[in-house]
Amino acid sequence: MAISFQLDATDQQARAGTMATPHGAVRTPVFMPVGTQGTVKGLTPEMVRDAGSQIILGNTYHLALRPGDELVRDLGGLHRFMNWPGPILTDSGGFQVFSLATQVKITDDGAKFRSHIDGSPLELTPERAVRIQENLGSDIAMVLDECPSLKETTPAKVRAAVTRTVRWAARCKACHTRPDQAQFAIVQGGLDIELRAECARELVAMDFPGYALGGFSVGESPESMHAALPACAALLPEGKPRYLMGVGRPQDLLAGVAAGIDMFDCVMPTRNGRNALAFTADGPIRLRNAKHRRDPAPVESGCGCYCCANYSRAYLHHLFAADEMLGPTLLSLHNVEFYLRLMRDARDAIIAGRYAAFHAGCLARWNAAP
Amino acid sequence: MAISFQLDATDQQARAGTMATPHGAVRTPVFMPVGTQGTVKGLTPEMVRDAGSQIILGNTYHLALRPGDELVRDLGGLHRFMNWPGPILTDSGGFQVFSLATQVKITDDGAKFRSHIDGSPLELTPERAVRIQENLGSDIAMVLDECPSLKETTPAKVRAAVTRTVRWAARCKACHTRPDQAQFAIVQGGLDIELRAECARELVAMDFPGYALGGFSVGESPESMHAALPACAALLPEGKPRYLMGVGRPQDLLAGVAAGIDMFDCVMPTRNGRNALAFTADGPIRLRNAKHRRDPAPVESGCGCYCCANYSRAYLHHLFAADEMLGPTLLSLHNVEFYLRLMRDARDAIIAGRYAAFHAGCLARWNAAP
Repeated sequence: MAISFQLDATDQQARAGTMATPHGAVRTPVFMPVGTQGTVKGLTPEMVRDAGSQIILGNTYHLALRPGDELVRDLGGLHRFMNWPGPILTDSGGFQVFSLATQVKITDDGAKFRSHIDGSPLELTPERAVRIQENLGSDIAMVLDECPSLKETTPAKVRAAVTRTVRWAARCKACHTRPDQAQFAIVQGGLDIELRAECARELVAMDFPGYALGGFSVGESPESMHAALPACAALLPEGKPRYLMGVGRPQDLLAGVAAGIDMFDCVMPTRNGRNALAFTADGPIRLRNAKHRRDPAPVESGCGCYCCANYSRAYLHHLFAADEMLGPTLLSLHNVEFYLRLMRDARDAIIAGRYAAFHAGCLARWNAAP
Repeated sequence: MAISFQLDATDQQARAGTMATPHGAVRTPVFMPVGTQGTVKGLTPEMVRDAGSQIILGNTYHLALRPGDELVRDLGGLHRFMNWPGPILTDSGGFQVFSLATQVKITDDGAKFRSHIDGSPLELTPERAVRIQENLGSDIAMVLDECPSLKETTPAKVRAAVTRTVRWAARCKACHTRPDQAQFAIVQGGLDIELRAECARELVAMDFPGYALGGFSVGESPESMHAALPACAALLPEGKPRYLMGVGRPQDLLAGVAAGIDMFDCVMPTRNGRNALAFTADGPIRLRNAKHRRDPAPVESGCGCYCCANYSRAYLHHLFAADEMLGPTLLSLHNVEFYLRLMRDARDAIIAGRYAAFHAGCLARWNAAP
């Protein structure tokens, strides 16, 4: 087995665990910074590591298009190519095909589409998704799934997507060859818990080493997602890692942890950092706001990150006003640190048996923000 | 005296020296990376320091416009504002007024112009240039000078600019108050060595702690500059630092060192780095070129910089193709390291009495580049 997972503590449904991977151990719950194109945008791997990152995510769709998965393989794999020696999880590319590519046609065989970069015709099948991720050499690969948008689909389409997702998972498992890579399955079914249960039942029977919930954060309200998460998480095996894909805001991560989720990824900390929005324990702040022009305080008081230890809000405000690259870099760094700290604090709270109080305290502080 | 300078060795006209400043010692010849807007573009101060930087340059014109010199003063000065604890030299803003501002009108009193950012009317006098730099708190401030473009001016205009430059230098000296800041004068006169001599004579009589050559790299050919440098450098006091402003390419720095120059600054390493051009001991290479797409070699073999120690040309090629911020960051870092190493090697060669051979060897290798 490429990975193993053990529970260190539980607190109601919340879990603290340890996942061993070929590139090191991961303490959960864990947030995975997103390195879409072989780099966590604006940060060196050392900055990502020093912020406390244990595992990062790479995007199969983007890397297969550019620079190409065979090129990455020939240059020693993704870890070496991007100089990240720790664990890497790669998605299957399915979500990006549905959200970024054009002229997408889905059949039982796979997805045909055109590249969002140069319009060239491409195909992503379950077998190709596995092959790409084996070439990249990630520690954890995801099966190809069909992820219909909740806003643009019907119950019949969601059911068809579940059927296809289950069949594709079986094909992914059948053609997977790397012993040093674990393959996680993805449960679809939208907000229909019966459909989710059916999907989970079939996938659990296939005995994957880990399971993800897909199809959240695709248009439903946060309240709907938060309400659905406990029942959905309970469908997954207790002894294996549970991953909520592409989620989300800090409050969404805490709801996920409460529901029994172990792993998260999202572009929010880096994307918002590039747009001058900082997450803090007292809610988000916008560094472009004129009120920060002369403010000598750090972005977040008490934060030990490189940005907060060395720079003022006034300096950040100046960097964004002057369109200097260092602004996005420093604020991405702080936001990644914020997300990682949130998960470390959540883990400590679970181990101490006070997760509910921790969760409520965070929400109260964020909701009291001006 | 805010600074002191001693010669450690000479080799023909080339000099190796040590300049003591309020924020640390600087071994010369030295290259100063440019931090125009309070940041060396794309790099953290730690990256700048780890690349070997001893002193950096800040731009008075840019910082006075944004965020404003009084704001920087109120936040503890430029060193603290930008988190650079080492020496800083600031220019006077004159060159930027002539090259960036609009509707520039020069009188004996100073320059009136409009901001290139928002078109607001502004004025830069010798007294204001001193005041701005005292607010910024740099270790070395430059006097305000008039720097006419060689391509757009007449001998009479160059002479008038010299006259004004000398008068402005006297006014700058008269109103300078910070004991922890040195003020360097600037010799103008274009390619007319008699005019340069006249300008230098008057400025040397005023006894500044350091002298710069301005008005090079503004349109003349490199050959003209290289030919003029020895005579121009010889006009400056032997016991004080000599600074060639805004120059230049690696071969220009080596010509300057041969002529007896001690200090250089230029945006080339960072600007070219952002545009995917890397300097190497075997000449420049363009990382966007398709031939680097699969190249596992570092940008420059034997270079110990963070970029070359950890990343392949193929990865850099990918980062630029994907428009990722890390590409400009890594290549700016390498190029700054290249410039700093060139000056360290030049210093070692001077001390060893083999500068001419070192100089010829560098040129031969660059000229042999494909």
